[in-house]
Amino acid sequence: MTGPSELRRDPAGGHWVIIAPGRANRPDEFEARPVRRGAGSPAACPFCSGREDCTPPEVAAIRPSGSAPDGPGWSVRVVPNKFPAVERSDRPAEPRSAGLFQSREGVGVHEVVIETPDHGADFPSLSPAAAGAVVRTWRDRLRALEGGAACAYVQLFKNHGREAGASLSHAHSQIVALPVVPGRIRGEIDAAVRFRAEHGACLHCRVLAEEAAAGRRMILSDADHAVTAPFASRFPYEMHIHPRRHGARFAAIGDEEAEALGGLLRTVLGRLRRSLDDPPFNLILHQAPSGRPDDPSFEAESRAYHWHFEILPVLTRVAGFEWGTGIHINPVPPEKAASLLGRDSA
Amino acid sequence: MTGPSELRRDPAGGHWVIIAPGRANRPDEFEARPVRRGAGSPAACPFCSGREDCTPPEVAAIRPSGSAPDGPGWSVRVVPNKFPAVERSDRPAEPRSAGLFQSREGVGVHEVVIETPDHGADFPSLSPAAAGAVVRTWRDRLRALEGGAACAYVQLFKNHGREAGASLSHAHSQIVALPVVPGRIRGEIDAAVRFRAEHGACLHCRVLAEEAAAGRRMILSDADHAVTAPFASRFPYEMHIHPRRHGARFAAIGDEEAEALGGLLRTVLGRLRRSLDDPPFNLILHQAPSGRPDDPSFEAESRAYHWHFEILPVLTRVAGFEWGTGIHINPVPPEKAASLLGRDSA
Repeated sequence: MTGPSELRRDPAGGHWVIIAPGRANRPDEFEARPVRRGAGSPAACPFCSGREDCTPPEVAAIRPSGSAPDGPGWSVRVVPNKFPAVERSDRPAEPRSAGLFQSREGVGVHEVVIETPDHGADFPSLSPAAAGAVVRTWRDRLRALEGGAACAYVQLFKNHGREAGASLSHAHSQIVALPVVPGRIRGEIDAAVRFRAEHGACLHCRVLAEEAAAGRRMILSDADHAVTAPFASRFPYEMHIHPRRHGARFAAIGDEEAEALGGLLRTVLGRLRRSLDDPPFNLILHQAPSGRPDDPSFEAESRAYHWHFEILPVLTRVAGFEWGTGIHINPVPPEKAASLLGRDSA
Repeated sequence: MTGPSELRRDPAGGHWVIIAPGRANRPDEFEARPVRRGAGSPAACPFCSGREDCTPPEVAAIRPSGSAPDGPGWSVRVVPNKFPAVERSDRPAEPRSAGLFQSREGVGVHEVVIETPDHGADFPSLSPAAAGAVVRTWRDRLRALEGGAACAYVQLFKNHGREAGASLSHAHSQIVALPVVPGRIRGEIDAAVRFRAEHGACLHCRVLAEEAAAGRRMILSDADHAVTAPFASRFPYEMHIHPRRHGARFAAIGDEEAEALGGLLRTVLGRLRRSLDDPPFNLILHQAPSGRPDDPSFEAESRAYHWHFEILPVLTRVAGFEWGTGIHINPVPPEKAASLLGRDSA
């Protein structure tokens, strides 16, 4: 499928993209190699069962056998990141300022969720119960962190494969609690609050309704979730997962919703692996800022925003044009992505 | 140099970054390989002298010998991109809309500037005269394109090395004329206009004055330019080049300024090559939108904004955290970058 280029504007984030099917014919346009799952020796892997002494002491774990902390017997294990982006603190980040230069202490929390004791497993190869346990662990850690004094926003993400930024191949995800609300999140929240004020409805629910009516970008739709190839996809085969039940914060989901999301992630990430030869990808959560329930904006943001996951395969290189403009050039129209990833057999 | 993490806010763009020196100790934190200049056979290179028939017909060239178009004898040659992100058009992009989904025809201009006929040369190895000729060619193409009906913004950029997105090793840069003003540019312009309204001064000139007073992030300073490692650098060894003479649009520079900038780029890119083993990098121009001189915002933007180049070495991977938040984690404090790149011997 080729065709003329089109500029598209993302209704939720406001950014433009260029959908340029003709660019897919460039030499070397797709150069990612399949991820080597289980690369490296388990004997040297700090995330493997039996090597718990290679990480800082665990802050949480699911231990079905009732085993003791920091030994084997766990199915999911959460540890502080050994090379944290922000340093753990229970007090607010101190603001600093020198003329036009504003900064803050780099404090917060940076944790690693080890998703399985098995060195060679990936998310789609987990059992449904194990996948649900990972999602419940994410939720429980977010619940624990979002009350913290240093925490304005919590970012949950997963890097799969070296080209997606993973420095270890053993399946894991990461959680960073930040003392500021990121600009990207602030932009999406503000757009959703404005839309709600103007239309009395959730922007994301409306987009999902229009996507369902159009049909061409729906990848999967069930009682609990809608998976789309977004209209203004920045990356080839980008997918967004929205819960059908409107909610601004991921930590508010119940056990059944967590189990359902675990099952859906197995399905969707399994399709990505089979259809595109296990490409590297980033999985990211977008949700409303932690906030304080007594803050007036907390209620408005809770009503307006709609948490969701984004899956961003790493198949093309981000280059000077993207860094200069913020506009991504995507050679794969999302309609084509949905046609491939929407198949049961995908 | 390690030390605690710090969050920093960019005064010009408003984005936050995390300066995290402790992350530099991660295994594989720096994994870029040196760029293989002159990789691939000149006999198969469409940008080499003698192979002019491998590109679309040239739209401009510097031909000191007075040679005929589309044959040898040129020192700089400009051709349409064979795989354009936007298709050439002389009329405005048609807006489209379907419910919440806005789009436009993907029209504009996408050109390639071949910077030298020599397959193995890079920017620092050009003669001062040849480097000046490249900068003059950039300026002349921008002058030609910025009047176009389809053009709201022109992005000039250069990708050096495969990991920075270059699909051919022969030295070249690119120019894309867009029918929309990119969000990243809009944000910087708005911040500069607000600052000017409030303080009666140019935000960028003020930042440069504060950088000169602080000293610790100055890389190079001469009569015409200031080169800094910006306070909120997103990438290790990021550099910004500001002209001392306030101006909003690059196309307004004169021949002498173009020559001076060519010489400075040779120096700065040469230091990058020597100090960091020829890393891949992106070079991008930021300037005010093309606009129409009779538009009321044109005058305000011309007074408020200050064009500049950004040099973004590709030494670390952008991963889920960055895509989720827009906040980059940079393991190299800009003060350390300036200390390395500020040396004459660098």
